[in-house]
Amino acid sequence: MKLAVIAREVGVSLSTVSKVVNGRADVAATTRARVREALARHSYPLPSSSAADAKRHAALLDVVIHEVDSAWAGTLLDRVQRAAAEHGLNVVLSTVQPDSTLHVPARRWLDQIAARGTCGVLGILAGFTTAQVNYMRDEGIPCVVIDPRSEPDPSVATVRLDNHDSQYRLTERLIALGHKRIAMVSGSRHSLPARERLAGFEAAMADARLPIRPEWRSEGGFDQSQSRAAMAALMALPERPTAVEFASDKGALAGLAEANRLGLKIPDDVSITGFDDVPDAESAVPALTTVRQPVAAMVDAAMRHLVGAPEAGARIEYETEMIERESTAPPSP
Amino acid sequence: MKLAVIAREVGVSLSTVSKVVNGRADVAATTRARVREALARHSYPLPSSSAADAKRHAALLDVVIHEVDSAWAGTLLDRVQRAAAEHGLNVVLSTVQPDSTLHVPARRWLDQIAARGTCGVLGILAGFTTAQVNYMRDEGIPCVVIDPRSEPDPSVATVRLDNHDSQYRLTERLIALGHKRIAMVSGSRHSLPARERLAGFEAAMADARLPIRPEWRSEGGFDQSQSRAAMAALMALPERPTAVEFASDKGALAGLAEANRLGLKIPDDVSITGFDDVPDAESAVPALTTVRQPVAAMVDAAMRHLVGAPEAGARIEYETEMIERESTAPPSP
Repeated sequence: MKLAVIAREVGVSLSTVSKVVNGRADVAATTRARVREALARHSYPLPSSSAADAKRHAALLDVVIHEVDSAWAGTLLDRVQRAAAEHGLNVVLSTVQPDSTLHVPARRWLDQIAARGTCGVLGILAGFTTAQVNYMRDEGIPCVVIDPRSEPDPSVATVRLDNHDSQYRLTERLIALGHKRIAMVSGSRHSLPARERLAGFEAAMADARLPIRPEWRSEGGFDQSQSRAAMAALMALPERPTAVEFASDKGALAGLAEANRLGLKIPDDVSITGFDDVPDAESAVPALTTVRQPVAAMVDAAMRHLVGAPEAGARIEYETEMIERESTAPPSP
Repeated sequence: MKLAVIAREVGVSLSTVSKVVNGRADVAATTRARVREALARHSYPLPSSSAADAKRHAALLDVVIHEVDSAWAGTLLDRVQRAAAEHGLNVVLSTVQPDSTLHVPARRWLDQIAARGTCGVLGILAGFTTAQVNYMRDEGIPCVVIDPRSEPDPSVATVRLDNHDSQYRLTERLIALGHKRIAMVSGSRHSLPARERLAGFEAAMADARLPIRPEWRSEGGFDQSQSRAAMAALMALPERPTAVEFASDKGALAGLAEANRLGLKIPDDVSITGFDDVPDAESAVPALTTVRQPVAAMVDAAMRHLVGAPEAGARIEYETEMIERESTAPPSP
């Protein structure tokens, strides 16, 4: 039996060789490479052939997203649906474990893909383990991540925003309006986009030689209730900030509602900014100053990459557009 | 060649027999039944076998939804994801044609399902053509529709709300608060839930012997910009309504924003109600009086039906809960 020979040659168990043959993900990358090399040497049909075959028939595009119930996710998904339909693909939607810091799809996700095949994987604010990345690379499954939550494996292509520059320009604009005491309710420190936005804010403040007091920093800017609590805490300070930047529109709209509830007038009492330009940003009262993500362009770039000629490790970056509306104004004297 | 024999026997073309054998949907139901009967008589392997085989391996659940970018859809999808994951199923998401009155998935949708198999179809505010329903029944693919947009084929199971009763109770409550001039911004007349909600409003008004002026009725209550325009038009009337019911929270929140923009105080100047209890209903200023849909229970019931023992044509109905918040009060004297 050939597999046993290969196992002996490589110095691994028969079960490990079998796992590699069956395209299972739970094999170390180096071991997998050695087993595949030995299989190829013995002209054993490599597992990719069946997977590639299934792929062609499946006409499925796998989308892995961190959550589906937010306005930002809804807008993105809507665009993904349209783009997939144009390519005759059905979208398989997977959400990551809600309690996962890294936003990685569940272990059995790869087994399911191996069983049914896929034309490509589109991650949205999601990440992949090394085993998952290796499996996709070995099987020739193209993978692109929009807005990666952490720096992905160099072989994974990404489509992302210039988060640092966007937050820098927003802060710069507040400073130009005359604000000196500016707070930021940033996103989770586990999120790469959140860290980049926070760094952009800090850089703009440092360049203007404005201090950021420790009590003007808080987290939770991607979450409604945490943003509301952060706004309440900021407004209760003896020396209030005159402007508050939130890491997302979701957070900013919650902060706006909290300010309304506290009887504060926006932007007279405090200016507020968001990030994303979700549909509700424009209809809010007052309408929200924010940063518009080119969602359609980002999704289309990712789809072109997946369906067309995938270039491993491509780095595509998009600029944002600042949308100045009614929630920002010069500070009251 | 057997197929030609069967075609002659049944009195149809060879191409029609071939379509039935290949599980294509574009064959009239009666023709399909006669062909399948003849095939069975000649012990020709019926097409369902291969589809059933594919089904077992696919572990895919097909979700057909009218739109993905609304808070209501997001909440539902999130629940569907969790329930599907518990059953080890991946969700294939299809949206219906945005311009379709009937909210029916595109023609090629069935061809794609036939090619790859599915464990079941969950429609959300979607409908299916007779050909699609027949195909699913013939192939033994269970189908459930949550909140059907039109009365579905009797063989399709549904999970729905008591829309009529919900809107009746909301209207009854406004009347009990003292309102006599009540307007309704209803949903599209092509939508069954919208028609049921409107009928509930009309019944409550009729039972209280209150008139509904023609100018107090308008459509567009599922759409933000139409709801805003409807609110503006109602507030410009010489004899304004003292309360406005919207067919959805999405509409009501847009109406609320419009009222704020017009400088009206809610609920002092006019009471507003919604429908759905989306997350933003509670955080709105003022918080929205609405009707809560038991989304989790509805999705779980649909999933039990799909994965467990599907009963064709089952009718499952859920009650809603009225959530009285700050956007309703007695009319100003």
